[in-house]
Amino acid sequence: MDGTTGTPAQPTPRTRSWWGWGWADAHPDDAECTAMGALLPGTLTRPLPVPRVHDLQIGSPAVQPPASLAHLVGADPEDRAAHAMGKAYRDVVRALRGRPGRIPDLVARPTDDREVADLLDWAGERGIAVVPYGGGSCVTGGVEYRGDAHRAVLSLDLTAMGRVLEVDTTGRAARIQAGTLGPSLEEQLRPHGLTLRHFPQSFEFSTLGGWLATRAGGHYATGRTHIDDFVQSMGVVTPAGTSTSWRLPASGAGPSPDRLFLGSEGALGVITEAWIRLQPRPAHKASASVAFADFHDALRAVRDVAQSDLAPANCRLLDAGEAGLSGAAQDGSAVLVLGFESADVPVGARLAQAVDLARAHGGRRGAAPSVDGAPADAAVSAWRSAFLRMPYLRDGLARMGAVAETFETAATWDRIPGLIEAVRSEVGAAALKATGHPATVNCRLTHVYPDGAAPYFTVLAAGRPGDETAVWDELKAVASDVLHRHRATITHHHAVGRDHRPHYDRQRPDPFALALRAAKDALDPRGVLNPGVLVG
Amino acid sequence: MDGTTGTPAQPTPRTRSWWGWGWADAHPDDAECTAMGALLPGTLTRPLPVPRVHDLQIGSPAVQPPASLAHLVGADPEDRAAHAMGKAYRDVVRALRGRPGRIPDLVARPTDDREVADLLDWAGERGIAVVPYGGGSCVTGGVEYRGDAHRAVLSLDLTAMGRVLEVDTTGRAARIQAGTLGPSLEEQLRPHGLTLRHFPQSFEFSTLGGWLATRAGGHYATGRTHIDDFVQSMGVVTPAGTSTSWRLPASGAGPSPDRLFLGSEGALGVITEAWIRLQPRPAHKASASVAFADFHDALRAVRDVAQSDLAPANCRLLDAGEAGLSGAAQDGSAVLVLGFESADVPVGARLAQAVDLARAHGGRRGAAPSVDGAPADAAVSAWRSAFLRMPYLRDGLARMGAVAETFETAATWDRIPGLIEAVRSEVGAAALKATGHPATVNCRLTHVYPDGAAPYFTVLAAGRPGDETAVWDELKAVASDVLHRHRATITHHHAVGRDHRPHYDRQRPDPFALALRAAKDALDPRGVLNPGVLVG
Repeated sequence: MDGTTGTPAQPTPRTRSWWGWGWADAHPDDAECTAMGALLPGTLTRPLPVPRVHDLQIGSPAVQPPASLAHLVGADPEDRAAHAMGKAYRDVVRALRGRPGRIPDLVARPTDDREVADLLDWAGERGIAVVPYGGGSCVTGGVEYRGDAHRAVLSLDLTAMGRVLEVDTTGRAARIQAGTLGPSLEEQLRPHGLTLRHFPQSFEFSTLGGWLATRAGGHYATGRTHIDDFVQSMGVVTPAGTSTSWRLPASGAGPSPDRLFLGSEGALGVITEAWIRLQPRPAHKASASVAFADFHDALRAVRDVAQSDLAPANCRLLDAGEAGLSGAAQDGSAVLVLGFESADVPVGARLAQAVDLARAHGGRRGAAPSVDGAPADAAVSAWRSAFLRMPYLRDGLARMGAVAETFETAATWDRIPGLIEAVRSEVGAAALKATGHPATVNCRLTHVYPDGAAPYFTVLAAGRPGDETAVWDELKAVASDVLHRHRATITHHHAVGRDHRPHYDRQRPDPFALALRAAKDALDPRGVLNPGVLVG
Repeated sequence: MDGTTGTPAQPTPRTRSWWGWGWADAHPDDAECTAMGALLPGTLTRPLPVPRVHDLQIGSPAVQPPASLAHLVGADPEDRAAHAMGKAYRDVVRALRGRPGRIPDLVARPTDDREVADLLDWAGERGIAVVPYGGGSCVTGGVEYRGDAHRAVLSLDLTAMGRVLEVDTTGRAARIQAGTLGPSLEEQLRPHGLTLRHFPQSFEFSTLGGWLATRAGGHYATGRTHIDDFVQSMGVVTPAGTSTSWRLPASGAGPSPDRLFLGSEGALGVITEAWIRLQPRPAHKASASVAFADFHDALRAVRDVAQSDLAPANCRLLDAGEAGLSGAAQDGSAVLVLGFESADVPVGARLAQAVDLARAHGGRRGAAPSVDGAPADAAVSAWRSAFLRMPYLRDGLARMGAVAETFETAATWDRIPGLIEAVRSEVGAAALKATGHPATVNCRLTHVYPDGAAPYFTVLAAGRPGDETAVWDELKAVASDVLHRHRATITHHHAVGRDHRPHYDRQRPDPFALALRAAKDALDPRGVLNPGVLVG
């Protein structure tokens, strides 16, 4: 939403939660959890205890590294447990219930390409699965190991490669190591007056390499918001050698090498660095909200804004449920949150034009717009706070035995109204059937395009105590079938991982699957790279 | 430059030249050729005759199609000759000298996917090379066959698949067959008030499929100008089956299937259709020119404009030689041609801001800017006319035994000044050495990005009578080595073809080459698709 989203000042080091989202000290306490649970019928009356690593059965590693690599590799139980899974709802529940995914045998932290290559060589020779790991915020099962075809599992943590190595201020680009976490990346760029301006919701807890490997979507609604568009070149260590593309503003020389590795989720190689396009920090900002009595009017308004030349930085449509949950509106209105930014020129006029477009579809303007530093209107502020707090609240609800998760997609405009309606009704019906209680299924549009939009759904439902992941899997299967029927992608920016794999296999063209499989075999002939993801 | 570029009204059918660029009746006559030749020392005193197909030795086809495919396949000698090569300078010279590339045995014109698949099946079974052919405007040897590993050569002409099949006016997109030529495509979209707004210099003589297969660059300087960015989904017939991606505004589900086929130059499959994003026709336009005494000042000005939020539709910097040649300036100035467009809002203010940026670097404003229909200034008009006439003049010079060709690249801003200087001096020196006469090496920037630019070079030199292609090959080798030393791409939008293959092989990362080779083997196991291109 703005350049400081997700980058609060951190005076003292904080501890990451091994089982839940983000910082350990930011989780809701037992009283908050109980209060939230009381709002959802059919949940527990007191929260599940915060899980402890020493309650898990963590065996000795099945392999030991050779002496030459020993200094890069650790076997600390808490470190291994923290690398066992990502941070999806089902991961949190598995941790709460003492049934995490397979704990990796070892965690490696290489510091350069040579060490990554050496680790891959060793893993290949010994048949050890290698799971690349950045910030660990994956919500689709992309950073764990499932199956038993490998002798051992090595979590390859890239965060020791966390530096901005070179900055080209003339051409506004930087060479950045893949393990750089969002806040550190922005901090290292700040002295140069530049920003990557890529703020996924996971910003604090995800890395450049993770963004590239999963084709992350930034916080901005339009324009350059996907990490794909920022890539000048990439360095990728594969078992078949290191791929280094040239640093170019554009090229028409064959299919793009970078586009093969973007979204490859660790299955084709380990992304170790990239030259990334940067921008000056925005100097002008303006935001406002518009409320709609009718969600379909709001959809038409958003489409008009997306098809205009206005290019809002934020253009987030909350349905009535989402607006109520976040505090943006309590009267059953849908709310459109609009924001504009520029490094060069004032943006108040563009905001006014967008608001006018929205009002032409029956929108009611909120408080006076915030322009260049004036306080944002209440709906905008409420939404901002809720957005950052959301994943923590989800974990609190998980402790109450509730089902609380999100999923997202994208489709062309002609399919959007029917798609949203079908998800709401079919997932709602499935939840009622599975739990005996009505569920909440909310929707917001996170990204808008001239030709379509990305709906993001939040599901809040009672669980079946002890069986929460099964309930969620049932609901997700229903949702995924709706997406498939409406030809809406199984993921717009959460990646495929292992959770989306069956649906991804149905979605991608068969000849492309053949080509990808062949590329995988050529680059990873021993099949050790993130097995089970995409093509393994 | 504007929505009608390259789409003059065509009252009567015209004949395409089989040996040279474009329309047969648009070529300069003998007197014009002689006059142009007189400006270049060391050329012929009278033009080479226009070549005639019946002077070529065209044998009988080495194969005949089965009865089931016979209605799709022809063996007319003129048709075969016209499909033997693209339209590079070296192609034109080969035709003029009676030594064209290998004449294909047959020309097929399928009308749907099924027929394309049947033709590929037949070719695969019989070991016949298949060269996909759209408008035939390739300038890098991409639509011919070299070598002798195949029993016969089939030119697969897609132009019988030339229809816009569906238009989605809500989401502004259309499903378009790959063989649709530029003018026909725009004509079919016009009743819907929409435009693809993709105008490569070859617009009249190139197809959607050709643009996709070669990652074509449009006429516009910034923003969405590469065909890649307009693709919602693609249909590609491969020997291993038909790949049909879903129609999506965006997706994060694995590496993009479309991006593998974009730029695949017919080596992985035959692109038969695509859903393409469209735009409303522009209602507001403004253009102006700015002259610079110093080319390096102009480079800095262009970079400032490219890094602003102004997003010019045209931002073409002509060096002094290029400005002189096109008539945009005769006083040794470099000229920046600026243009703005919008469907929604007036663009005069944005033009004024861009001109101000340019003047801050020492630019001198030309005549009063043209805004919304006022006549363009003389420099802008001169450049527009010269741009469309350029390829015809090149062929006229070829008839005079001169070397007249272009090449293009892209690099980051930090490399641009040194790159341009090195190309000018080293190619100029090589031409003097090869021909004994000084050569002209001009440069313009065709596309600009916040992080770099695409320089486009024109070389005019004396030839060595009868040996013109060898001279050009020598100069191109020198130029390509300069590009490689400066890590500038071997092509920004002309594709790799066969001419750029050695340089492409040095540029692309080795692991990517392995992956592409593996993908090719999986999709085209018999190796019949455009052999020699990219990976064959």
